[in-house]
Amino acid sequence: MIFANNPQLKSWVEVPAGSDFPIQNIPFGVFKTDTKDPSVCIAIGNHVLDLHCLHEAGFFNELDLPKGIFNKAYLNEFMRLGKSKTREVRNRIASLLSTDNNELKNNTELVNRVMYLQQDCQMCLPVKVGNYTDFYSSIEHATNVGTMFRDPKNALLPNWKHLPVGYHGRASSIIVSGEPIRRPKGQTKAPDAELPSFGPTKRLDFELEMAFVTCKDLELGQSISTSDADEYIFGFTLFNDWSARDVQVWEYVPLGPFLAKNFASSISPWIVTMDALEPFRVPGPEQTPKILPYLSYKGDKNFDIHLEVALKIPNHAEATICRSNFKYMYWNVNQQLAHHTVNGCNIQVGDMYASGTISGPTPDSYGSMLELAWKGTKPLAMPDGSTRKFIEDGDQVVMKAFAENGEVRIGFGEVRTEVLPALVRDEAGALA
Amino acid sequence: MIFANNPQLKSWVEVPAGSDFPIQNIPFGVFKTDTKDPSVCIAIGNHVLDLHCLHEAGFFNELDLPKGIFNKAYLNEFMRLGKSKTREVRNRIASLLSTDNNELKNNTELVNRVMYLQQDCQMCLPVKVGNYTDFYSSIEHATNVGTMFRDPKNALLPNWKHLPVGYHGRASSIIVSGEPIRRPKGQTKAPDAELPSFGPTKRLDFELEMAFVTCKDLELGQSISTSDADEYIFGFTLFNDWSARDVQVWEYVPLGPFLAKNFASSISPWIVTMDALEPFRVPGPEQTPKILPYLSYKGDKNFDIHLEVALKIPNHAEATICRSNFKYMYWNVNQQLAHHTVNGCNIQVGDMYASGTISGPTPDSYGSMLELAWKGTKPLAMPDGSTRKFIEDGDQVVMKAFAENGEVRIGFGEVRTEVLPALVRDEAGALA
Repeated sequence: MIFANNPQLKSWVEVPAGSDFPIQNIPFGVFKTDTKDPSVCIAIGNHVLDLHCLHEAGFFNELDLPKGIFNKAYLNEFMRLGKSKTREVRNRIASLLSTDNNELKNNTELVNRVMYLQQDCQMCLPVKVGNYTDFYSSIEHATNVGTMFRDPKNALLPNWKHLPVGYHGRASSIIVSGEPIRRPKGQTKAPDAELPSFGPTKRLDFELEMAFVTCKDLELGQSISTSDADEYIFGFTLFNDWSARDVQVWEYVPLGPFLAKNFASSISPWIVTMDALEPFRVPGPEQTPKILPYLSYKGDKNFDIHLEVALKIPNHAEATICRSNFKYMYWNVNQQLAHHTVNGCNIQVGDMYASGTISGPTPDSYGSMLELAWKGTKPLAMPDGSTRKFIEDGDQVVMKAFAENGEVRIGFGEVRTEVLPALVRDEAGALA
Repeated sequence: MIFANNPQLKSWVEVPAGSDFPIQNIPFGVFKTDTKDPSVCIAIGNHVLDLHCLHEAGFFNELDLPKGIFNKAYLNEFMRLGKSKTREVRNRIASLLSTDNNELKNNTELVNRVMYLQQDCQMCLPVKVGNYTDFYSSIEHATNVGTMFRDPKNALLPNWKHLPVGYHGRASSIIVSGEPIRRPKGQTKAPDAELPSFGPTKRLDFELEMAFVTCKDLELGQSISTSDADEYIFGFTLFNDWSARDVQVWEYVPLGPFLAKNFASSISPWIVTMDALEPFRVPGPEQTPKILPYLSYKGDKNFDIHLEVALKIPNHAEATICRSNFKYMYWNVNQQLAHHTVNGCNIQVGDMYASGTISGPTPDSYGSMLELAWKGTKPLAMPDGSTRKFIEDGDQVVMKAFAENGEVRIGFGEVRTEVLPALVRDEAGALA
């Protein structure tokens, strides 16, 4: 067992009941404060631990890490050390934080310098995303969409059960939890309209997804197998793939989603390592018809991670509108990465690969407003008596994810995003 | 008129007749040699000029450039200076290279240090591409594809004349001219087959495209107009969007091309500035039905740039198989960028935006094998008596582009790529 995963470990740092961040998690992120430049950190209970400061104080000396490896605005260089080394770092941190270890605990002056309350920190985008791919790997979601927009009897397209359908998205517009988004504008065309029109989207939606991040380069022309993939996947983040449905339906043939998606994607500030999720591996669904050999895999490659989406409308408390689970994925992450590289496509440290909307089998587990309100035909009741078919200005969408097994809870924190009204041009032509 | 564009300028560096690189061009690139780290350079005749060395020698002192701005592996930081400053640099270089100016010409020792024969240099990928978008903006190409695969009477999809259709591609697999590619493998399914099969693509194709590169950041949530776009576009490169047609047709519904494209895209080593192409602006085609106001534009936004593709099969000279022109574009680059940002999608320095295949009105101007050999029904005759429907192992695809007006010729050099056989796994499972 990985040392840090031991459920018996206890930390001398207080970890409130129900915290996403016990000593068994140790997710990585990047934080800053009003007076401090960005630095790599981990979460423990309600605190963040400044790894650069800890490194400078000599607490990683035995690991022979590059100087300044945590003094960075992104995790990329740290991840590039490789899974063996980053595993040693996570284990060392678990050791330093455990009740058995006095090295840090008894150094009050240093503890005061390296520990911050999360509420006093600003969490930054943790990864410099070089390339971003979005898959479409939930059979429930693909079936729902196919049923709504095509043919309920042939909801899945012929390729869907033979390969993990995916496409490239925009890396530059991936933002971190807490950053608001603007309602996007674009072209739409009502089915009965002769010509398209232009304006703010009327069908702003979220998509509940998980994403993994790669920590190893693969040269152009090479491919990796499903079993190789474990060495390339550093960890996971929670991912909201914002979508403008009316823009999407008009623009997406024949080359796929573009402006309907690239205005923003929001992620959690924490990257939970694949190591920390090891206790939550579960078998995936049976795949029939038989898949091609390059997609076959051994072992449990799905993860039992509870997912939920809450909506907070102005002046009311947030209310959960979706409860799903990462385990529902038809195609697992190892298959996704093997497929992605089977043609020789290269991989770089810091690439991000999202799952596609993760819907479950029941209507309350659907991972988008499109499905929850079934294309607007079943509006959701809100606490103020109104209803929602899609997301309105002023709404906050809040996603949460955690794995729990009675012994430990490994959480992702949240992805919280407020939707601001669309910018309009004033008479001088400036956006305001 | 921009100083460097003056057709009367002559250089003391020899520029052979028909060269792509007269003093009026001054395209930017990055070169290295066996003994020299990458450095920003320009092309003049058969030479490259090392700008870092020239900067260190004080020849840009009056421009107040950041120290080491040319001592880089990519053009990004140079482009980030903005069009006004990079225009001054191009003008200064034109001045230094002109027959009227003795500053550099008479300093033989320095000339020997800053001038290299192109044949002695290795040209590098000139731009670190952060985000890559591919448009689909040639009406002839879209019509040909629609005619072949859908309905000749309704070849264009309903959205095509209302917006510049585009999608995101893979930034990491953009490579420079001279780097060979491996034939990609993937899933394909013959129309009459029950199940898909796996193997090297049988329909490897090129796509003749131009691409522009951005030199200015735009914040997420903001938009730019078609007239703003000129300040964001640094210059152009010649672009081969490699495609595996059999993979594409199986995978692309409903989310667009993925593994059929992301195994490689090849570009010319030179970025020709938009400034250098000013004399070649021409009106674009009339756009009917009327476009939405945010896509309207003033002035000539198309460019008259001759494009050609040659195929070199083993043991034979290369033979031209396509002659097209960038002026055929239905949607211009200003419209593309305004559309791309109308939803608030951000832009970063070093993003690359390709045009889509540029086909002309006649069969010899089609920009892909798919169209030239009309889906395999009209194979191309080769100099050895064989025929080609698609690209074979050992073939080299060579693209060239230049603008010419009787006074000057502004060229892009070439994009030359050899196709190597697919890698196969040996018995131990290693790729060889």
